[in-house]
Amino acid sequence: MKKRLRDLGEDALIARLLRGFPGGENLRVGPGDDCAVVDPGRGLLRLLKTDAIVEGVHFLPDTPAAKVGWKAVARVLSDFAAMGGVPEHLLVTVAVDPAKPVAWMDGLYRGIRKCLATHGGVLAGGETSRLPSGAMISVAGEGRVERKHLILRSGGKPGDLVVVTGRLGGSIRGKHLTFTPRLNEAAWLVRNLRPSAMMDLSDGLAKDLPRLAEASGCGFEFGEVPATRGCTRAQALGDGEDYELLFTVSPRRWIAAAGQWPKDFPQLSIIGRLCPPGQGASLAGGWDHFSP
Amino acid sequence: MKKRLRDLGEDALIARLLRGFPGGENLRVGPGDDCAVVDPGRGLLRLLKTDAIVEGVHFLPDTPAAKVGWKAVARVLSDFAAMGGVPEHLLVTVAVDPAKPVAWMDGLYRGIRKCLATHGGVLAGGETSRLPSGAMISVAGEGRVERKHLILRSGGKPGDLVVVTGRLGGSIRGKHLTFTPRLNEAAWLVRNLRPSAMMDLSDGLAKDLPRLAEASGCGFEFGEVPATRGCTRAQALGDGEDYELLFTVSPRRWIAAAGQWPKDFPQLSIIGRLCPPGQGASLAGGWDHFSP
Repeated sequence: MKKRLRDLGEDALIARLLRGFPGGENLRVGPGDDCAVVDPGRGLLRLLKTDAIVEGVHFLPDTPAAKVGWKAVARVLSDFAAMGGVPEHLLVTVAVDPAKPVAWMDGLYRGIRKCLATHGGVLAGGETSRLPSGAMISVAGEGRVERKHLILRSGGKPGDLVVVTGRLGGSIRGKHLTFTPRLNEAAWLVRNLRPSAMMDLSDGLAKDLPRLAEASGCGFEFGEVPATRGCTRAQALGDGEDYELLFTVSPRRWIAAAGQWPKDFPQLSIIGRLCPPGQGASLAGGWDHFSP
Repeated sequence: MKKRLRDLGEDALIARLLRGFPGGENLRVGPGDDCAVVDPGRGLLRLLKTDAIVEGVHFLPDTPAAKVGWKAVARVLSDFAAMGGVPEHLLVTVAVDPAKPVAWMDGLYRGIRKCLATHGGVLAGGETSRLPSGAMISVAGEGRVERKHLILRSGGKPGDLVVVTGRLGGSIRGKHLTFTPRLNEAAWLVRNLRPSAMMDLSDGLAKDLPRLAEASGCGFEFGEVPATRGCTRAQALGDGEDYELLFTVSPRRWIAAAGQWPKDFPQLSIIGRLCPPGQGASLAGGWDHFSP
């Protein structure tokens, strides 16, 4: 029987596709983290990221276009935050059914503009194409991060606490269109708490925590999860699109900084601990683009 | 009546969408040229580009996947060439129907790998998403160019000759999937002929020459066009997807360099001349994503 993409799962697919691509001299981090990292040799590191949202998958035909634009950009900014960085230049590609009203496109760009005005980043270019039906918005961009503030998924160590910002689950009720990318929080964390590993939660904790632990060469244990009001534990683990920060930090640093975060910070919850590889819990579920 | 995207046309749409976006401190060239240009203050300039191809628009469901991958990347490399630069780091986003065979995706990445191995550039990251049907490949990337080699669309002057590489028209017969991005040619041109303005031909000379002339604040006159064998003049002007270089050069430089280009160079043809604004010819046709 012919193997289809949906038979393979997203992580296995990506691992398969990336075989045989050489790295580059200046490419410090390639595929597999929230952003790629380019080291120009001196000064700030450059972050590169691309992401896309699709009508019928990430938003609906009747979702207000300004919210679609906000979401498309905020997802990329969330990835810059997850590396400890800030956005610089964004490129927006829109492929869209030519029968869409011009007002829809106006709304889309209003949302893009609002997100950039609120969180930083400059629209540097883009591309438009027709799509046979629906719409897809692809956003790529570059950001910057100071060397000492860069945080990868791979820096966690056994014993590190696992922490999330905010509450998880139920994003589909509205948050997935209006969320605040955690740039301010990340900026504070990298300067004060100095997490050992960090990523943003896009596919659900059940999918993303194992990814972080694996990248760090660790297992993990976990307990209570801060669920959004009205959400079950299963929803908090599996719904996805939380766009909160998941990070690990040594107990020593956590205790030293405890209670010092800014007043307007979202809730910080310890949900578990990294442990040696092969030990600890396992998790299943979360969002997979290519599962049935 | 509600205005649809197809009623507006691509250039008018883009101009409308980009109103109200502030520039950035380091952004030397924003939307409107083949690439955006970032000036980091010293050293090489950075080029940023994003582009996308869509099943049913830029390729067909039965187009060999490796050719689709080649095309997706080569289009972006062609834009780096058009600025006088070279590619560095590429990001590839694929949105695809989960029912596609895994072999299709393997083929796609084989084509991407081959194009990068042939022409330079490193795959730095990417993203996959499901699409309700068909496939879309979005490629973004950064390149570099020496300050003195940067060529914009806007540098042409009245009296400059208008020149194209290769032959135009009929790309749909196959060239649009297998073309060579003109990186080598551009590298020679910026070092030796020093064009005053340059762009790559993607939407057809009838669409792209007026864009270059307008960006340069000039009118244009034009005569014979080097058509692909078997193509009419109308096809050479309007088919699009030629991925040849269109550039302008002062007659003095042209004469000084005449006949000195490398033996493996494609044909170089003078097709016209820039003139003061408001004078010269006009052109209609070419490819518009949002025309009916």
